[in-house]
Amino acid sequence: MVGPLNGVQVLDLSWILSGPYCTMVLGDMGAEVIKVERPGVGDGARGTGPFLTNSEGVQESAYFGSLNRNKSAVTIDLSHPEGSELFLKLASQADVIVENFTPGTMDRFGLGYVEVNKRNPRIIYCSISGFGQTGPYADRPALDIVVQAMSGIMSITGEPGRPPVRVGTSIGDITAGLFATIGICAALREREHSGLGQMLDISMLDCQVAILENAFGRLFATGEIAEPLGTRHPAATPFQAFPTKDGWLVVAIFGGNEAQWHLFCVAVGHPEWIDDDRFQNAWDRTQQIDVLEPAITEAMLCRTTQEWLDELLPMGIPCGPVNNIRQAEQDPQIRHRKMLITRKHERTGEWTHVNTPIKFSRTPGSIRLDPPRLSEHTDEILQRYLHLDPAEIARLVTEKIV
Amino acid sequence: MVGPLNGVQVLDLSWILSGPYCTMVLGDMGAEVIKVERPGVGDGARGTGPFLTNSEGVQESAYFGSLNRNKSAVTIDLSHPEGSELFLKLASQADVIVENFTPGTMDRFGLGYVEVNKRNPRIIYCSISGFGQTGPYADRPALDIVVQAMSGIMSITGEPGRPPVRVGTSIGDITAGLFATIGICAALREREHSGLGQMLDISMLDCQVAILENAFGRLFATGEIAEPLGTRHPAATPFQAFPTKDGWLVVAIFGGNEAQWHLFCVAVGHPEWIDDDRFQNAWDRTQQIDVLEPAITEAMLCRTTQEWLDELLPMGIPCGPVNNIRQAEQDPQIRHRKMLITRKHERTGEWTHVNTPIKFSRTPGSIRLDPPRLSEHTDEILQRYLHLDPAEIARLVTEKIV
Repeated sequence: MVGPLNGVQVLDLSWILSGPYCTMVLGDMGAEVIKVERPGVGDGARGTGPFLTNSEGVQESAYFGSLNRNKSAVTIDLSHPEGSELFLKLASQADVIVENFTPGTMDRFGLGYVEVNKRNPRIIYCSISGFGQTGPYADRPALDIVVQAMSGIMSITGEPGRPPVRVGTSIGDITAGLFATIGICAALREREHSGLGQMLDISMLDCQVAILENAFGRLFATGEIAEPLGTRHPAATPFQAFPTKDGWLVVAIFGGNEAQWHLFCVAVGHPEWIDDDRFQNAWDRTQQIDVLEPAITEAMLCRTTQEWLDELLPMGIPCGPVNNIRQAEQDPQIRHRKMLITRKHERTGEWTHVNTPIKFSRTPGSIRLDPPRLSEHTDEILQRYLHLDPAEIARLVTEKIV
Repeated sequence: MVGPLNGVQVLDLSWILSGPYCTMVLGDMGAEVIKVERPGVGDGARGTGPFLTNSEGVQESAYFGSLNRNKSAVTIDLSHPEGSELFLKLASQADVIVENFTPGTMDRFGLGYVEVNKRNPRIIYCSISGFGQTGPYADRPALDIVVQAMSGIMSITGEPGRPPVRVGTSIGDITAGLFATIGICAALREREHSGLGQMLDISMLDCQVAILENAFGRLFATGEIAEPLGTRHPAATPFQAFPTKDGWLVVAIFGGNEAQWHLFCVAVGHPEWIDDDRFQNAWDRTQQIDVLEPAITEAMLCRTTQEWLDELLPMGIPCGPVNNIRQAEQDPQIRHRKMLITRKHERTGEWTHVNTPIKFSRTPGSIRLDPPRLSEHTDEILQRYLHLDPAEIARLVTEKIV
């Protein structure tokens, strides 16, 4: 199977999460991704648990594996002049470079955009960093949690009156990886017309701001500073998670769906609410949250989540279980959509991957290659693209340049 | 300014959030986006608050505005045969269609992918839905909160032992919009080579699973079902938000950075921790969270967030304030990066937009057009692309077809 990026070659210098997530999405869509790591060391994600023990008794990082399928792995010491020259020779043939070092690092290696562009004006050079290549914080160390904190997303996630809460996934890194991927694909399309590459400067903090468009929109419209609401909606009720006999259920009745509200009143055993003046629309009900929330909670606790789904879904009321990760893994829809793919793995027996969610009708993406061992493809790539002979490669290995 | 998608025409049938977010990103990158709405009704987002009062005394939705710059607005009644024929004529000239109706709706209008593809085999047709076009839940109503619940993200967001928490932004919709944008751009690149379009089937639930790669990776590696941790890290301490004299501060010391830990011990007035056997690495410290968290909290409460930043940042310790939305808006880095752009607006005086986070060096994105009024460009688009004369358009308006 070949995806829509078949024929695109990506040199991937990135590590940990934001960059590798981007190059994973590119690889899933058919790009050839060559991951370039430091000899003997490699991507720090390789040392991050949990681990699987492979057939050689060696531990392989599941964290690394979840981000690095569909990539081949080469080691090059970029701080060595011969290493950086090898890299530039690869870059002169490549379509895309992705890196997420601290700003300035690639320039210190002599491998910044200006230098690569001299050898290859078609290169699309994507730099991802915590705060961007410019500005007062450009040099600060950035981690997902720091960016989540500074963007404001943490301040609107959590329960009212309680401490801020981090989004449970590394949304700061992942969102940056997604916007980077969009920029790269758009630049590839543009290059088909102009023949020219360009540089992309992606900041994790910028990207978090970009997904807070509604919170900022409210600030600028009314001066309102958004606050955390647990699972509640600011203007509709019932629109939140309620505990059931055996778990939690989300019920979401938007404004304007009064027929749904009436059905819900009957379902929870409170038909008298239908004509109650206090509860005539979503906004009025929200003003009465102190009355409604405990009463609905009491009713919901009497049945299991599945019993409520069986009752409410046929009424057309938007609802769903709050699944834990195991329950999600077993969900029939997620299984039907093949979002979790178990593949035979050369060294660990099998490996389950989260599949690509981009379903193309004619050029589907796919998982073709297992997560690579450090330097697994160094010989192959240096021979194929730089035509180095085995003796030359052996010398480079001995001198720890590759 | 022309972005990398200059020359790409998008017919946008989408409404509320996931689809409009996708077409906003496309428009920011220079695509011509023609938003097609139902005559007299329009995108439901137009009725969603908060509102700004314009110079004509009419309320304009800030919610709609935050998602619909860079789009022109046409009304067509797709359920009317003449309306659907007008749409097919536009579609025969377009590059991309984006829709996020309940699966089956476009087929009922006679405007499904098969039909459009007959007129225009180059069309890239992107359908976004809650659960995808196929599978047991395909027909269920989906809202962001329902998808967040079912994916598992809600189960790992929140405080330990307390209720699940919704991510404070509509990450279910927005992530789907981003993956859809990636797919569209990749398909556009592919079409340059094949000459053919294709269909994209994007499911909000699939996309949530895709950003939970780490949680699922842990499940498959060890059977561990991830749980919410507030702002804490599962394997490193200190790595969380602490209250200060006037707010909250995130401190994030990863494993392996023991020099940072030693500096931090001195900064919080506990130099004796440096040699304490219980605290020698990030994992050991995490086992002692019940000792360390209260002691660090007590120390952090003695100074303001800014005082801590002034102390810890020069030490190279990753840290940052937990900004609320107003504080984020005033942040010097976010301002330097021009992530919030105030533009003159024809009807409301001015309007502040969250800018595109994709910074291209040669073909920058931009905000060129204000959020449109319903049907603002119907005459212009029908004349320019379908060469209808004013009398014909007047008839279509009278008959409520446009």
